[in-house]
Amino acid sequence: MNQPIASKFLRRQFPAALQDELQALLGVGRVSTAHAVREHHGHDESHFPDALPDVVVFPETTEEVVGVVKACAKHKFPVIPYGTGTSLEGHILAIHGGVSLDLSRMNHVLDVHAEDLDAVVQAGVTRKALNAHIKDTGLFFPIDPGADASIGGMSATRASGTAAVRYGTMKENVLALTVVLADGRIVKTGRRTKKSSAGYDLTRLFVGSEGTLGVITEVTVKLYPQPEAMSAAVCCFPNMVAAANTVIQSIQMGVPVARCDFVDPLCIKAINHHSKTTFQEKPTVFFEFHGSESSVKEQAETVQAIAADQGAEEFQWATKPEERSKLWQARHDAYLACLQLQPGSRIISTDVCVPISRLAECLEETEKDITASGRLVPVLGHIGDGNFHLCIIIDPNNPDDILVGEQMNHRLVERAIAMEGTCTGEHGIGCGKMEFMDVEHGDGVDVMRMIKRSMDPDNIMNPGKIFAM
Amino acid sequence: MNQPIASKFLRRQFPAALQDELQALLGVGRVSTAHAVREHHGHDESHFPDALPDVVVFPETTEEVVGVVKACAKHKFPVIPYGTGTSLEGHILAIHGGVSLDLSRMNHVLDVHAEDLDAVVQAGVTRKALNAHIKDTGLFFPIDPGADASIGGMSATRASGTAAVRYGTMKENVLALTVVLADGRIVKTGRRTKKSSAGYDLTRLFVGSEGTLGVITEVTVKLYPQPEAMSAAVCCFPNMVAAANTVIQSIQMGVPVARCDFVDPLCIKAINHHSKTTFQEKPTVFFEFHGSESSVKEQAETVQAIAADQGAEEFQWATKPEERSKLWQARHDAYLACLQLQPGSRIISTDVCVPISRLAECLEETEKDITASGRLVPVLGHIGDGNFHLCIIIDPNNPDDILVGEQMNHRLVERAIAMEGTCTGEHGIGCGKMEFMDVEHGDGVDVMRMIKRSMDPDNIMNPGKIFAM
Repeated sequence: MNQPIASKFLRRQFPAALQDELQALLGVGRVSTAHAVREHHGHDESHFPDALPDVVVFPETTEEVVGVVKACAKHKFPVIPYGTGTSLEGHILAIHGGVSLDLSRMNHVLDVHAEDLDAVVQAGVTRKALNAHIKDTGLFFPIDPGADASIGGMSATRASGTAAVRYGTMKENVLALTVVLADGRIVKTGRRTKKSSAGYDLTRLFVGSEGTLGVITEVTVKLYPQPEAMSAAVCCFPNMVAAANTVIQSIQMGVPVARCDFVDPLCIKAINHHSKTTFQEKPTVFFEFHGSESSVKEQAETVQAIAADQGAEEFQWATKPEERSKLWQARHDAYLACLQLQPGSRIISTDVCVPISRLAECLEETEKDITASGRLVPVLGHIGDGNFHLCIIIDPNNPDDILVGEQMNHRLVERAIAMEGTCTGEHGIGCGKMEFMDVEHGDGVDVMRMIKRSMDPDNIMNPGKIFAM
Repeated sequence: MNQPIASKFLRRQFPAALQDELQALLGVGRVSTAHAVREHHGHDESHFPDALPDVVVFPETTEEVVGVVKACAKHKFPVIPYGTGTSLEGHILAIHGGVSLDLSRMNHVLDVHAEDLDAVVQAGVTRKALNAHIKDTGLFFPIDPGADASIGGMSATRASGTAAVRYGTMKENVLALTVVLADGRIVKTGRRTKKSSAGYDLTRLFVGSEGTLGVITEVTVKLYPQPEAMSAAVCCFPNMVAAANTVIQSIQMGVPVARCDFVDPLCIKAINHHSKTTFQEKPTVFFEFHGSESSVKEQAETVQAIAADQGAEEFQWATKPEERSKLWQARHDAYLACLQLQPGSRIISTDVCVPISRLAECLEETEKDITASGRLVPVLGHIGDGNFHLCIIIDPNNPDDILVGEQMNHRLVERAIAMEGTCTGEHGIGCGKMEFMDVEHGDGVDVMRMIKRSMDPDNIMNPGKIFAM
């Protein structure tokens, strides 16, 4: 696994002068070429082999980021923004070499505007840190990828999580950004207003751009009132089609389900083992409802009636906050739990998303493929969004194993795209899904290239990600 | 008023061969140089003087749009997409001459996916036509600018309306687009899935680009389940600050208000006169609540209690569908009603949007400015979004009158931007608000120019709009 992936790519020569310039900017203590530090910044949660940056820098302000980017621009040397290293598609790998720009010291919540339901944070603030900071305001930030990712990184990958069915993804929840461009200029995109029609939507252009157009240093995100009442439930279904139908009908009836995550029996088994829970090993949906006391009750009754029609078992309720937290923490730890099914393994995590009307069909065909493969492949997903993940467990030291896993993902992506779906609902492209861009976007990839070329002509911003230049 | 604005601009010479080429493409019947047709396509709802296109074409398919754009590209001649001509900032004026590309014949609803809550429409379908088409599906499309605009045009201006506080704007409600680029290539942006992290968000780049990056020919929009219950109410407040506070507190408590529009006494007077209604001439909010029977009741009770604390009078309810329709149609006709306050007048419609915490302050300062001016200026707006409009009534034949109105808007925009607001919440920039782009976006305008230049190097797509090249 630790064979540098960079051997496949042209690695740019690290300019000797650049290190001196970076040290002059940030001081020796915040510029590291130590192998352990470079190694830490040379891999993410994906199964891809390490690709170490030449140097890691730790800026503390937007102006310091400007200094770093300008120094790199002068030498035409790659800049790779780094948040918490929890990306899933090799986003932060220095496949062409480069400076890893670690934003973890930019971890200040700059402003909370309770009346406006927004907060301004530095890019290195994590989602849990933000929620801890605002817990006494009566507000919360709902986007929750499995990891405690940085909000800058979540913006860069257009992340979502279990609550997107109700609260949307980072696309809907970023109001404004501060971005350092490839030429070192600072741009503030968007305003704190709820809407604007003033020109091109640069905020949305940077959200999901994976560091290839600039470095996000500050993010203004939407917050939401903590619901008066919340309740969560676990429900077992005879099969995943029944589960999908329940969710489709609930949404069509206008029930504002806050969360509805599907977990298959193998994944439940892994979760039970890892989190010491005792869920039944059956096709299961984790639900959560938010609203007033009476509205939560009404939502729950409606969904229970639909589920019963689909042959579901009784809902098991978790109404106390600590029970709810435990339930969703177990769900969030599913990835780690699946890793433990096979010691020493890594996971190829697929991420297709299809129109919800095609979800049951897509899941069924995929289940057949998994069965035919004879492999250990837990399935889970954000069923209300039509988004699900296979955790294809592989031995990272066995190239054949990796190949078989990648082929399974390839078939899945082809299936999803044929159903008007996308190869990635929330993880991003990184260097792992670039091969699917043409079939999904056609000439749209060329438009992306035009934009990239116009904003980063020397291709120094996280090169080798999303699409080849 | 009918002095061509084009006299201020360099008008490109209409290439004689282009007309023949367009006729060869579309036939003589769908290529018009008749003065009446050009005049109809040479003005919108703004107060700007006419600027007539050289020719108007009526394509019926995306492929025909490709033909028109390629012909124009060959001659480097402007292409100006035209929907219903209801833009408010001169978006469709042919200030440099050009071909007006009228999309009104592309008026087919191509697909309705009830399970997925989406519809695919040609760009010329209007919002009311879509709602009429889907009325038996139990779904509806909530975005409602005052005019019955085309969905292509609404996408191009990032429009919203009275229901954005709950359902969002076109930014949130467009899933995918078919766009013809300046070089004639067709790009399909986005997918029908609820989310995707696959590359740059081209959909959001074209939404709000006002025809300057390509011609939108098809739009996939989100639909919503018709609520089980809806009720609307009118409520008078002692002043606009009390009205704003009521809305802020309601939203902070998590009440999912569907609509809340503020109308000032002068605007009420105009509405009463135009729509034969009998609303009290006081600061008024029109509310609407959507949900289950019990949820609507609960929402209404919560908001009524907050309003009472703010000194509001009793809610006057409109629960029957026809009463609700009448109420909101009266609101939508406010613009026409205000025009009738002074025969022969035009309106400079301002459109600032501020963070909601600054709304009361912004309204108060603006009210002082209006009082000091001694002019007829009705005020109304989408108070839940922090977005409001002055209808500055002017005599279009009196340059001094226009200047005074434009100066009032200038002061308002400066005030709003100083409060972290935007010069336009929903109308767009067109050629009317270009002067505010630099102060609002700084170097962001340069990024927009880079993108424009990379995608439309000859500047043929609706030139002279949003920003100067």
